Amino acid sequence: MSAPHDLAIRGGTIVTASDRFRADIGVRDGRITDIAASIEGATEEIDATGLFVLPGGIDAHVHLAQPTSDGTVMADDFESGTRSAAAGGNTTVLPFAMQVKGTSLRDCVTAYHEKADGQCYTDVSFHLVISDPTPQVLGQELPALVRDGYTSFKVFMTYDDLVLNDAELLDVFDVARREKALVMVHAEGHDAIKYMTSRLESEGKTAPYYHAEAHHQVAEREATHRAISHAQLTDVPVMIVHVSGRDPMEQIQWAQKRGMKVHAETCPQYIALTRDDLKGLNMDFEGAKYVCSPPPRDADSQAAIWEGLRDGTFEVFSSDHCPFFYEGSNGTGKDNPKARTSFKWVPNGIPGVETRLPILFSEGVSKGRISLERFVALTSTNPAKLYGLYPQKGALVIGADADITLWDPAKQAAITQDNLHHGSDYTPYEGMQITGWPVRTILRGHTIMQDGVITGTKGGGRYQTRGTSQAMI
Amino acid sequence: MSAPHDLAIRGGTIVTASDRFRADIGVRDGRITDIAASIEGATEEIDATGLFVLPGGIDAHVHLAQPTSDGTVMADDFESGTRSAAAGGNTTVLPFAMQVKGTSLRDCVTAYHEKADGQCYTDVSFHLVISDPTPQVLGQELPALVRDGYTSFKVFMTYDDLVLNDAELLDVFDVARREKALVMVHAEGHDAIKYMTSRLESEGKTAPYYHAEAHHQVAEREATHRAISHAQLTDVPVMIVHVSGRDPMEQIQWAQKRGMKVHAETCPQYIALTRDDLKGLNMDFEGAKYVCSPPPRDADSQAAIWEGLRDGTFEVFSSDHCPFFYEGSNGTGKDNPKARTSFKWVPNGIPGVETRLPILFSEGVSKGRISLERFVALTSTNPAKLYGLYPQKGALVIGADADITLWDPAKQAAITQDNLHHGSDYTPYEGMQITGWPVRTILRGHTIMQDGVITGTKGGGRYQTRGTSQAMI
Amino acid sequence: MSAPHDLAIRGGTIVTASDRFRADIGVRDGRITDIAASIEGATEEIDATGLFVLPGGIDAHVHLAQPTSDGTVMADDFESGTRSAAAGGNTTVLPFAMQVKGTSLRDCVTAYHEKADGQCYTDVSFHLVISDPTPQVLGQELPALVRDGYTSFKVFMTYDDLVLNDAELLDVFDVARREKALVMVHAEGHDAIKYMTSRLESEGKTAPYYHAEAHHQVAEREATHRAISHAQLTDVPVMIVHVSGRDPMEQIQWAQKRGMKVHAETCPQYIALTRDDLKGLNMDFEGAKYVCSPPPRDADSQAAIWEGLRDGTFEVFSSDHCPFFYEGSNGTGKDNPKARTSFKWVPNGIPGVETRLPILFSEGVSKGRISLERFVALTSTNPAKLYGLYPQKGALVIGADADITLWDPAKQAAITQDNLHHGSDYTPYEGMQITGWPVRTILRGHTIMQDGVITGTKGGGRYQTRGTSQAMI
Amino acid sequence: MSAPHDLAIRGGTIVTASDRFRADIGVRDGRITDIAASIEGATEEIDATGLFVLPGGIDAHVHLAQPTSDGTVMADDFESGTRSAAAGGNTTVLPFAMQVKGTSLRDCVTAYHEKADGQCYTDVSFHLVISDPTPQVLGQELPALVRDGYTSFKVFMTYDDLVLNDAELLDVFDVARREKALVMVHAEGHDAIKYMTSRLESEGKTAPYYHAEAHHQVAEREATHRAISHAQLTDVPVMIVHVSGRDPMEQIQWAQKRGMKVHAETCPQYIALTRDDLKGLNMDFEGAKYVCSPPPRDADSQAAIWEGLRDGTFEVFSSDHCPFFYEGSNGTGKDNPKARTSFKWVPNGIPGVETRLPILFSEGVSKGRISLERFVALTSTNPAKLYGLYPQKGALVIGADADITLWDPAKQAAITQDNLHHGSDYTPYEGMQITGWPVRTILRGHTIMQDGVITGTKGGGRYQTRGTSQAMI
Repeated sequence: MSAPHDLAIRGGTIVTASDRFRADIGVRDGRITDIAASIEGATEEIDATGLFVLPGGIDAHVHLAQPTSDGTVMADDFESGTRSAAAGGNTTVLPFAMQVKGTSLRDCVTAYHEKADGQCYTDVSFHLVISDPTPQVLGQELPALVRDGYTSFKVFMTYDDLVLNDAELLDVFDVARREKALVMVHAEGHDAIKYMTSRLESEGKTAPYYHAEAHHQVAEREATHRAISHAQLTDVPVMIVHVSGRDPMEQIQWAQKRGMKVHAETCPQYIALTRDDLKGLNMDFEGAKYVCSPPPRDADSQAAIWEGLRDGTFEVFSSDHCPFFYEGSNGTGKDNPKARTSFKWVPNGIPGVETRLPILFSEGVSKGRISLERFVALTSTNPAKLYGLYPQKGALVIGADADITLWDPAKQAAITQDNLHHGSDYTPYEGMQITGWPVRTILRGHTIMQDGVITGTKGGGRYQTRGTSQAMI
Repeated sequence: MSAPHDLAIRGGTIVTASDRFRADIGVRDGRITDIAASIEGATEEIDATGLFVLPGGIDAHVHLAQPTSDGTVMADDFESGTRSAAAGGNTTVLPFAMQVKGTSLRDCVTAYHEKADGQCYTDVSFHLVISDPTPQVLGQELPALVRDGYTSFKVFMTYDDLVLNDAELLDVFDVARREKALVMVHAEGHDAIKYMTSRLESEGKTAPYYHAEAHHQVAEREATHRAISHAQLTDVPVMIVHVSGRDPMEQIQWAQKRGMKVHAETCPQYIALTRDDLKGLNMDFEGAKYVCSPPPRDADSQAAIWEGLRDGTFEVFSSDHCPFFYEGSNGTGKDNPKARTSFKWVPNGIPGVETRLPILFSEGVSKGRISLERFVALTSTNPAKLYGLYPQKGALVIGADADITLWDPAKQAAITQDNLHHGSDYTPYEGMQITGWPVRTILRGHTIMQDGVITGTKGGGRYQTRGTSQAMI
Repeated sequence: MSAPHDLAIRGGTIVTASDRFRADIGVRDGRITDIAASIEGATEEIDATGLFVLPGGIDAHVHLAQPTSDGTVMADDFESGTRSAAAGGNTTVLPFAMQVKGTSLRDCVTAYHEKADGQCYTDVSFHLVISDPTPQVLGQELPALVRDGYTSFKVFMTYDDLVLNDAELLDVFDVARREKALVMVHAEGHDAIKYMTSRLESEGKTAPYYHAEAHHQVAEREATHRAISHAQLTDVPVMIVHVSGRDPMEQIQWAQKRGMKVHAETCPQYIALTRDDLKGLNMDFEGAKYVCSPPPRDADSQAAIWEGLRDGTFEVFSSDHCPFFYEGSNGTGKDNPKARTSFKWVPNGIPGVETRLPILFSEGVSKGRISLERFVALTSTNPAKLYGLYPQKGALVIGADADITLWDPAKQAAITQDNLHHGSDYTPYEGMQITGWPVRTILRGHTIMQDGVITGTKGGGRYQTRGTSQAMI
Repeated sequence: MSAPHDLAIRGGTIVTASDRFRADIGVRDGRITDIAASIEGATEEIDATGLFVLPGGIDAHVHLAQPTSDGTVMADDFESGTRSAAAGGNTTVLPFAMQVKGTSLRDCVTAYHEKADGQCYTDVSFHLVISDPTPQVLGQELPALVRDGYTSFKVFMTYDDLVLNDAELLDVFDVARREKALVMVHAEGHDAIKYMTSRLESEGKTAPYYHAEAHHQVAEREATHRAISHAQLTDVPVMIVHVSGRDPMEQIQWAQKRGMKVHAETCPQYIALTRDDLKGLNMDFEGAKYVCSPPPRDADSQAAIWEGLRDGTFEVFSSDHCPFFYEGSNGTGKDNPKARTSFKWVPNGIPGVETRLPILFSEGVSKGRISLERFVALTSTNPAKLYGLYPQKGALVIGADADITLWDPAKQAAITQDNLHHGSDYTPYEGMQITGWPVRTILRGHTIMQDGVITGTKGGGRYQTRGTSQAMI
């Protein structure tokens, strides 16, 4: 007979991406070893009666500790970012190791490892960002890094210091096919945004709100179509990240319908915010708190995003957590004189790693828009499969890491900055009423958050080397 | 410590509608009690090394022991039909209790119970067929039967003795909404088929092949659109069964895209046969072996059906098993003088309960068209959810019935009549090469088929009272 | 040198379905003989400076002097109806010769000729209505009538005394193909309307407004799809008349896009009214003034109809003039006790033959939604081509009848009952501001209306035998 | 009474974009003054009995006397090019005045006037090509040139010496909106073509055939979507020229359906050639005769182009005449050593100004795919309207230039190089059987071609200053 379990979770309702049932879970050495009608005695016991037992949240799109060219300081490093993630029900996050133009990709990766090492509360793994696709990078560094388990990378179709032109995109896509890495694309048309920005500025329209006009949905749709076409020509799957509205979504659906391997992600800001939030109070600077790219759209696009979440167009729901300070001279905002001259100087990004799961649960599951099983698929199982973490992560199955989130579907509370653990000095969702909160986050068998209190330890999170994306098989 | 398990299945790879992992399964009292890295000793042990461990197949569309108005004898009763189902990897089948016009629906149900009682190798549950929607039936019998667990019923838009007109359909749909029962629709336009039949006959086109022209895809598309519209007006979900091709499928996709609650089923004949099979040898009578309604279409429709299986348009893959004899005077065919005068007298239906799973596995999973997880969803989990059997059936979860099929993905063999267990004297798939076969069928913990040999007992199958369809919640 | 012209129209701008140019028109013996930079002296001279010179309006869908089964008296006979048409800029109207069930089609035609003979101010020609497709009618009467120049006929998919079932529709379509006659279809699903009516009545919803709910757009869409499918099976072109909104229109576009020969008509009520008009004042009986079938829809459907008018989905814009009295015991309304018990007893139809052209001109051309050339195509040239009147009617070309309407694009006036010439005691467009009015109607060279005053003579209009529709060639 | 006409054309059937009728035409001073049942005596009389009398062909997309950067000599100058045009039934052609990077646009225009002056057999007018959109060009030269009647200009999304990037395209579109000029877009993605070229070359695929793979339809579709998006952002109509297949066409239809002002042109090569023609004999160099951009596609795309010609997606049918020599060291081909090393050095373009009308008439009108009226619209009336020549050109109306083509619908002959008048040493349509040929071309009242013999004079063609496109009003 076996030794007692290290941990038993009793009495909860287990939910996977397809099934829902009452059972206990037994954990040994950080892994799930038993799912059973009844688990015998264990070293630690958790009573999950009345709770949902879900695979730990995987936030596949998070920006942490990224330096910016203009000196803006990001509000979260690996410590605060992963602490916030744990508080929000996540056990794994995937930040970016971002290449700076003119530097070695490998060196960048090393630098991000140094930033993350010993700092994390959750497990982490890096996507790469390719901003300088030199022959050296494409021919040697990237293939080696993919083999080392960095099996996904992101490219940008906008931002002065990141944008790749079409020739570069095609070359990068080509490498992705050869190396079986999944390309993630930030799809917004750079020149279109610059054209719109310049037109708006010439009309004196410089308030934060005009960010939403400059980053026009047409520019996002065009870039989405372009990225899809490049992927079709190079015969490689592609992941379109942070899709904001109906126009780009319909391009993705059109491609999927034709059998192209186009995957897509969306984020909380596209179901919980609209462009009107960027107006602040009477078009004042408060709107800067909501500036992100692509920006939130309108009610019709929110409806479209829900359709896409329901029908499978979107396989991944991430936060695109990209936190800045609103106050202070290095911040988004209020005290940044340059940002006050034009929306184009307002840093693009909002915090969200801690609120992602509650928002989707409350607006989606509690309001009957999506099933609980789809919630699990979107927030954990699918990201694990698409980013090479499955089945170690993203599933409540035998042998998997015991990454588990206990969810109380009845708990009601508003989102407030006071209760969050991120580095930012505000949340764009302040006051939003949420029904259904994570009440316990368990990482490899250890509780790292309970009832909103962080119980994990800095450095308790491990770096995860990843396998090949299921999209590439 | 608990008593030993009645059954342990070791070493296999468990596959659900979303997950795949190595684990043992422990069974007590016919139910799954443990899924674990290792199950301790058990009364019966099965080595599943190298095999997939799947939830038992649920064939949600099967015709057994139905009398016909013209005296044709159906080739399967409950005994042979469920024996054949067990041989094909199924643990539950859903035949129809078919109302004969002018009779009580309740009496019909009773009669079918009498036919099934003590005869079955697999579990069974009845859909109702409403052919005579009198006020008595709609107002009293049907509501009572739904409450008794007959939570789905089928209506026909064609066949002289079954067809409902639009007024009747609307009334039936109305009852379905009120009683929370799922309506299944055979969608082919009756008058259009009669028009085509008459035109073809007047041109001397009477060979079995012309059945495929008479039952034109346009007639199916039109009826599908009509059924969807009636469902929209009455605000009730609807299941379109045995969808044969691109035209009706696109109607379903159009409705789903608009948010209508339209569910759909397809069958092996629409991926493995085409209308050309009805030509037999040089338009001879051999084609009668392939006559079913709707008929198989063409290569483009086969491609469309695969798209729909992949993208979720179809949630259920059933056999529409409707077996007749080819030889003998009461058969489909060869010796039926009336059938030789015109295709319209050839009984509509082909056998398929035993070949459904191997065909979808081989053509779908082995050839890389669909994932194994989707195979499970289409053939077991989704039918269980849509027809009120979940989670007792359709899932490998704690507490579920231990209905399990062991699958050998590497086993290769051709389909031949000699190896089948159904009552028909032929199979339309004779000679078809299959990669991947069920090698063991386990019903509530008891092996009822092993390596093609029936080990279950007549009467071992139980009638299953069903709950409300998840489509109606 | 030739004799002087009977009539010269000078100085106007001639507009055809494709061209626009300054020229004079010369007429001899009722026909256009010369179009020239300058016409020499003529017996009668008309100064058209500042005016558009258009081919006379052809209203291809008009109901006149039809008896109804419940004794309601139609508000226009051939005299008042054609007088009203002339006042509205029309030179030809196409009313229906409507078969009464159980009677000979030929006899019905004869009866309508008797009603029209010597009564008309404009030219007229009859569509047939087939309500009783007996073998005698389909096999003998109809073919003979088509050969006699009755080259179009209408069928109904609703109304108790007119509805054809699918078998009958298919047979009629078959005859249409053989005889090269154009079938017009009133596409609304009979049983769906009855179902909705019964549901609404059972909820006490009997005010005129509920007509618009009973005649649901889904019922129209379904019948449209069904008619298109029947036409596809029988391989015959079809004309869907009085399309009311986006749903049925999209069915038509879908069919056209696939190469099916589906033609379509729409009417003023679908761009100038909405279902809200049926509410009258606070859901009172005033709404009965707007009851027609299909009913007006909503703003989105109005927008859709404009799209279809612009992009060619609709080739014909007719009035569906079907006039009743609002007051009086035989009327629609106010004093009809039965109509007050339920919307279902309110006669279906509104007057519109006189306001059709001004409404389309003002809302379409003056507001920049459609070009003037398309106005000509929709209201004159296309109906002439589709109903076998071209090029004698519908075009300003040499040899054509001198049917000409002079149009003052700058004239502004409201529509008022006082200024109309129809038999009804109200207009549903009371008070509607119009920019652009017909100021002179010329029939075969004779002015029949000038500045709102009828100058033609009763009996001046002639019956027109028609050739084959261009849709059938 | 007036003086006799200079010219009378008797007995023909006049066809416009909407009408068809028997009439005579009278001409004075080069203009149509009378269209009548009968024209009195005239100085010159032409018997058009049995012929169609059409507005003279307008070829809106012709390249003449353009220098190329690599020294390839274009096979037609203004003399031979317009002679060939006249022979093919055209009375006006619109070649390009092409800016060379680094030079003044105005100087380029002057240079093209010098090349054309006194050389032309038909009337001509220039589109501009913007290859260097400097502030000087966009701010001053272009506005001035538009005011001078150069009311359309073309931009390229590919070709090393012509390609504009997205920022430049947006700026040019902006100017087009402000100045009310129509932008024509060559929509092929430059980087995608270079990527494909490089991939093919690396695989040793250098034969002319691979041009058709390098210029992939996906690259054309992507650029089409991009151009449409830029036009949407800048709120300006746009003309997509030489659309080759289904993929880009569907983008255009999608945009038109959404109400965007997107116009489109297609060409003979997309209905009469396929990519297989580029294979020559067994992939030899003969394929170079068919190299043009975009290249011909496949049978499905041909079918799509016909749909678009029929349903109005395409408003203009031009030749994209761009003639090179097959033989000789400066030619496309056979003796050009560089072109033999890779398809990418084969000059892009084929001759077609003389065969455009016969091909569309024979394949379209004679074979029943489009009506004769649509033929007139596509080849004459629409280009006149869209390029500011209407109603002086493109219509048989009073006051228009007497530009008339007499067409014999029954004349049958094959296209052969021997019978053509262009400068090229081959035709890609050699041996193609044509039913329906132009037998007389009349320019402002003077016959310039009769029965295949040029009767006009060099210098008889005049430069036409143009008004604003109807697309911009």
